[in-house]
Amino acid sequence: MTKTNAGRFFEDYSIGEVITHAVPRTIKMGERALYHALYPARHALYSSDQFAQGCGLPFSPLDDLVTFHTVFGKTVPDVSLNAVANLGYAEGRWITPLWPGDTITATSEVIGVKENSNGKSGVVWVRTTGRNQHGETLISYVRWVMVRKRGDGPAPVPVIPDLASAVTVDDLVIPKGLDFTRYDFTLAGEPHRLGDYAIGEIIDHVDGVTIEEAEHMLATRLWQNTAKVHFDATNRADGKRLIYGGHVISLARALSFNGLANAQMIVALNGGAHANPCFAGDTVRAWSEVLDKAETPAPGVGAIRLRLVATKGRAGPLRGEDGKYHPDVLLDLDYWALMPV
Amino acid sequence: MTKTNAGRFFEDYSIGEVITHAVPRTIKMGERALYHALYPARHALYSSDQFAQGCGLPFSPLDDLVTFHTVFGKTVPDVSLNAVANLGYAEGRWITPLWPGDTITATSEVIGVKENSNGKSGVVWVRTTGRNQHGETLISYVRWVMVRKRGDGPAPVPVIPDLASAVTVDDLVIPKGLDFTRYDFTLAGEPHRLGDYAIGEIIDHVDGVTIEEAEHMLATRLWQNTAKVHFDATNRADGKRLIYGGHVISLARALSFNGLANAQMIVALNGGAHANPCFAGDTVRAWSEVLDKAETPAPGVGAIRLRLVATKGRAGPLRGEDGKYHPDVLLDLDYWALMPV
Amino acid sequence: MTKTNAGRFFEDYSIGEVITHAVPRTIKMGERALYHALYPARHALYSSDQFAQGCGLPFSPLDDLVTFHTVFGKTVPDVSLNAVANLGYAEGRWITPLWPGDTITATSEVIGVKENSNGKSGVVWVRTTGRNQHGETLISYVRWVMVRKRGDGPAPVPVIPDLASAVTVDDLVIPKGLDFTRYDFTLAGEPHRLGDYAIGEIIDHVDGVTIEEAEHMLATRLWQNTAKVHFDATNRADGKRLIYGGHVISLARALSFNGLANAQMIVALNGGAHANPCFAGDTVRAWSEVLDKAETPAPGVGAIRLRLVATKGRAGPLRGEDGKYHPDVLLDLDYWALMPV
Repeated sequence: MTKTNAGRFFEDYSIGEVITHAVPRTIKMGERALYHALYPARHALYSSDQFAQGCGLPFSPLDDLVTFHTVFGKTVPDVSLNAVANLGYAEGRWITPLWPGDTITATSEVIGVKENSNGKSGVVWVRTTGRNQHGETLISYVRWVMVRKRGDGPAPVPVIPDLASAVTVDDLVIPKGLDFTRYDFTLAGEPHRLGDYAIGEIIDHVDGVTIEEAEHMLATRLWQNTAKVHFDATNRADGKRLIYGGHVISLARALSFNGLANAQMIVALNGGAHANPCFAGDTVRAWSEVLDKAETPAPGVGAIRLRLVATKGRAGPLRGEDGKYHPDVLLDLDYWALMPV
Repeated sequence: MTKTNAGRFFEDYSIGEVITHAVPRTIKMGERALYHALYPARHALYSSDQFAQGCGLPFSPLDDLVTFHTVFGKTVPDVSLNAVANLGYAEGRWITPLWPGDTITATSEVIGVKENSNGKSGVVWVRTTGRNQHGETLISYVRWVMVRKRGDGPAPVPVIPDLASAVTVDDLVIPKGLDFTRYDFTLAGEPHRLGDYAIGEIIDHVDGVTIEEAEHMLATRLWQNTAKVHFDATNRADGKRLIYGGHVISLARALSFNGLANAQMIVALNGGAHANPCFAGDTVRAWSEVLDKAETPAPGVGAIRLRLVATKGRAGPLRGEDGKYHPDVLLDLDYWALMPV
Repeated sequence: MTKTNAGRFFEDYSIGEVITHAVPRTIKMGERALYHALYPARHALYSSDQFAQGCGLPFSPLDDLVTFHTVFGKTVPDVSLNAVANLGYAEGRWITPLWPGDTITATSEVIGVKENSNGKSGVVWVRTTGRNQHGETLISYVRWVMVRKRGDGPAPVPVIPDLASAVTVDDLVIPKGLDFTRYDFTLAGEPHRLGDYAIGEIIDHVDGVTIEEAEHMLATRLWQNTAKVHFDATNRADGKRLIYGGHVISLARALSFNGLANAQMIVALNGGAHANPCFAGDTVRAWSEVLDKAETPAPGVGAIRLRLVATKGRAGPLRGEDGKYHPDVLLDLDYWALMPV
């Protein structure tokens, strides 16, 4: 009897199954210090207890992507171990902030399966939910991956979930108590409020960061993400370690401070594509496009829908003439953040 | 008068002397976050306060090897500065868990000396004890090293301590309150209990990690281990920095989660050899052999004795025909861990 | 309207203006753990709560340079973004220790401007003050930088501040309660007290550390210092990332433990020069010269004025025959520290 986890294959997913992911994780301020050492994160709500209190919160929560990465990491042994590709995200919502001392657990429900025509792999859709120690939902999102088949068995009845193209404004959950009416723009770093942004506006975040192997491995390990390709230089024929896509998300989000310092809290993930692989030595830059704007019921709090694009070269076209992502594009993310009106 | 510490030479050790090591160290959750970023550590008892509470502990302790490394680091200026080789460990026991906020101090008693026949060096045995701020023993272990002689003086009367080949089951200290009767195997990550392991069974931990210079230096510094060879690329003729052997221990132990997720708490170190040096760029893998199993008086708690082997290549023979370790073997460690029966 | 911060040019500084720097920052024990992983920091007062209590403090403060780096980092977007060179420091004083949980904010008052004769740049002097959440001053120091002009406008009336060549002993602020009368030299790591050091004495700190890209970037990011040159390998023609000068300060200060283990608290920065740039791969060493000694009103507490020099080669002359720093000299820092008498 083998004791090690060989991972699930396409045949091992059945519609409606709820997978409980292993290894709950208590997150405290040490993880925050590391997050701020790994990414140039400067959004003031996540940097200062006093700033957060000025926004109606008890103190500063962990960066929202810490919740995402930790939950994602827990799903890897059950969802991604035999995955060929991470295909997409949808209907992601942050429901409760992550406070220092919280313990995260995660489950995933299988909501879609579709065998590929080659008979050798298939697509699996899961809705993953992260919860704190009180059983409250921290985050919920749909992810779909392409997974290898173990054998030559018959294809299951295909089930393709009907996913929203974006989270609607009414479905955004505003953290309890959030109030931007006394927001301090000077301490936040930029004067721009929601009204200063126009739909369609492009913001070049200017700065670039050249990634080192040690950094992306420290980050990926911190989320207890164990996918071989990120750590083992002998795993690929080219001797390269593939950088966890979430590392690029956090890096691009942090870079977006320069121009979007007031896009404080991430509340929804509408979609996202890891357009091209990222490797150590790449210099990552980012730009954002304002996709939508909205008001919310919370005092002084607006919502801004942003496309966040990370590239490894200078700014250029997002897609080539063939409609495919330009080879320099690493990430194309669509999310909602909260900003003072 | 020189102000810097030149380290002790073989002549400076006399049987019975107790050396108080410098720089006490308070350890909190920041060190835990770093430990989990540096190693793929996932044992649930050390990841989640709630999981630890389900096992009868007040909350999650620091990983047991944090205690070992911190104590070891304190001994370096007094024991290893002029050491030629780290020869072995014995009779290591973890007596009290390390809780966040504890302050570690360490002392070492010289229990053996034996000059080498070349007259230029000798072997020194010390029994090192780490204590918390309450004076409770955290850990105790014997280590022996080969140390240079300063001069040509006469050899001391040799004293070779009589060391146990392994800590007996009766000598294992079970942390107060530990109870595995309601152990959650799903959250722990694997279903295997003590009864599922057979003596002689080999478990390949599958995953590999390629080590970077920045990582092993961050780790080694965190333990305030100041040995030059780990940090100064000009120290060796080949321009390489030797990786602290403890870094390989922690890496291999963390990799062993895959197949030994329920070998939760390390309670004894029976012996260990750093078989070959490890350098940045090496891809480390690990396998374990079950050496022994035992029951303990604590409810639901068994003990498993494991050989943990780290290699830098694919799995192969532990030793060559000459009886020496295969050049790819980095570590051969013998320890006891606690596991649900 | 561009949303990103293009930084200030020489014309944007007017005498008397007080700039409020953005992004307040709460610092806890996670930052301390990272500091101790990034630098071989071992001064006992900053390592152990119990040791600090033995010196009359409530518990262990953050390393003094954490205050300096965090405040410095906040000034970068407003002071250094278009700076050509960091020219000097003066009148630096640590007024209140930084305790875990404190939130740092920073302001800078423009106290000097002088256009260069080329008409293309000028020198700006600012007095920067870091404060905690209670409004108490943590640190205050003067820094001057050379900044590019935006245009061809007329030169302002030059104002050159009259700066002290060193902070006087009477101006040193001793942390409340500090008492070295029961100082434990054994646990601190060295027996040398103030009386054991002679003015003019040189202490070679022996150890060297070879710097990695990942390390200096983690450190610099931790202080939320966003200067491009530290992170973006495409920024300079030679493809090198310039290491933040403060990284060298912290590294040299940590290395100085070996010979100056009892120079515990930094209380003043008299001056400093980043003599030559530092890059990854450099092996940094340090030596100190005792410049002055003094008594203080606090029980058992003396002050020692030290020149701390960091080099990237073996020890050699500080300056060449032309009076310029030797190319191997990285740092020449002049500071006061507190030491048991």
